[in-house]
Amino acid sequence: MNPSEFRKKVAKREITGPTAGYCNNFLQTNMIVLPKEYAKSFERFAKQNPKAIPVLEIINGSHYSKRLAPGANLLNELPSYNIYIYGELVKTVTDIEEYFNDDLVFFLVGCSFTFESALIENGISLRHVNLNMNVSMYNTNIDLVPVDNFHGKMVVSMRPIKKDRVADTCVITAHYPSVHGSPIHIGHPYMIGIHNIFHPDYGSYIDIKEDEIPVFWPCGVTSENVIQNIKLPFAITHTPGHMLITDKKDEDYYVSI
Amino acid sequence: MNPSEFRKKVAKREITGPTAGYCNNFLQTNMIVLPKEYAKSFERFAKQNPKAIPVLEIINGSHYSKRLAPGANLLNELPSYNIYIYGELVKTVTDIEEYFNDDLVFFLVGCSFTFESALIENGISLRHVNLNMNVSMYNTNIDLVPVDNFHGKMVVSMRPIKKDRVADTCVITAHYPSVHGSPIHIGHPYMIGIHNIFHPDYGSYIDIKEDEIPVFWPCGVTSENVIQNIKLPFAITHTPGHMLITDKKDEDYYVSI
Repeated sequence: MNPSEFRKKVAKREITGPTAGYCNNFLQTNMIVLPKEYAKSFERFAKQNPKAIPVLEIINGSHYSKRLAPGANLLNELPSYNIYIYGELVKTVTDIEEYFNDDLVFFLVGCSFTFESALIENGISLRHVNLNMNVSMYNTNIDLVPVDNFHGKMVVSMRPIKKDRVADTCVITAHYPSVHGSPIHIGHPYMIGIHNIFHPDYGSYIDIKEDEIPVFWPCGVTSENVIQNIKLPFAITHTPGHMLITDKKDEDYYVSI
Repeated sequence: MNPSEFRKKVAKREITGPTAGYCNNFLQTNMIVLPKEYAKSFERFAKQNPKAIPVLEIINGSHYSKRLAPGANLLNELPSYNIYIYGELVKTVTDIEEYFNDDLVFFLVGCSFTFESALIENGISLRHVNLNMNVSMYNTNIDLVPVDNFHGKMVVSMRPIKKDRVADTCVITAHYPSVHGSPIHIGHPYMIGIHNIFHPDYGSYIDIKEDEIPVFWPCGVTSENVIQNIKLPFAITHTPGHMLITDKKDEDYYVSI
């Protein structure tokens, strides 16, 4: 199935679950939708925190992607959306047509799914992929650079990596700077404020074996977490794991380093 | 001072100390000198263990470098040499003219000094450089791939790196694969058989601060350690820290990754 076929099925509600495993090697993105009033500040906030919030496309005054998935209707071509009012998740819905108005700005944000196939192709196995589980995610004490009302701490994803492939993992993921890039931390969870590695704040706990080291990347959930903590009056996001599948290839985001 | 001027001063014994800090940005190498009888096995051993023993030039039937320092006399243009008999260090000398015969083979081996300037230029400070001390080096439990009689464990160098620059450090050093390249281990000394980080087996102990992570690279001392442990009947090496300064630039060893 190609991405546009996949999205048409989503629009018809033939697919409503997580997007992992669909349209392999095509770029999947996070989405954040904000009223114009907050969008300018968020855009600058993202630019100040590019490892955590790598914005790949901004759509303004329309609800169709132009660059990543030309013509994709962002109101119903993601399988699930979260509606936040004053930072509270009030509803999870399969389309957001009733919420649309010209005042909304859509941000498509890079996701670390993109570099996972590169890791696997290089012989670095990822247990959460093999087990078909969600990646482990944690709140940290890493401060984001504040802009206007936007501020907060970074959320990270964690992947256990065999001890002799950690350096390779840094190099491989550094080739994908616009989808979180190289790790933000390696090996010592307490150094970034994670005191119980066995209890992720989001996703599933993924076992760390004796010959493995926990490696941490900035995570797209950071934006959602900020929206909740600053109690933003209104926001829509994709539901975690239920991403926009774009027409771009993961490999298009590979850059020389 | 350019490298050839430096080497002439060494030959005249005007310089007999360590080479760190001289001829910045020129490649410094380790040297191992073996009788032909063992040289073939050592060459294949090095090829099987390229991260620990990256051979950059082999000189056979002569005592002059051809490629790295054309015309340099390897018998007296290094400031100090160690003579090993049956694995025992029997003498440290400032020239090896009296030991030379046509049967000897000279190996010039890459050294991690080469990537240190790249780290520093990228804002990653190295405490042992700032303090003008030797890097910390440790024996490990990492097995080398054995060839004929050559076998043993890897020796590593350790540099404490600020926790948020560890991934960058991997990427920067990965650009220099022929001078040990990316780290062999990050963060957990016990996982590679180092049980007392405060007592290096070679070099000086370099303090690891609270916001730093110990990062480990394969080290040129590995070859010397193997020669001692297998009690090789005869070998000459440079004295640690007293390297050959070549005419090549460090940047010549930068490769795209």
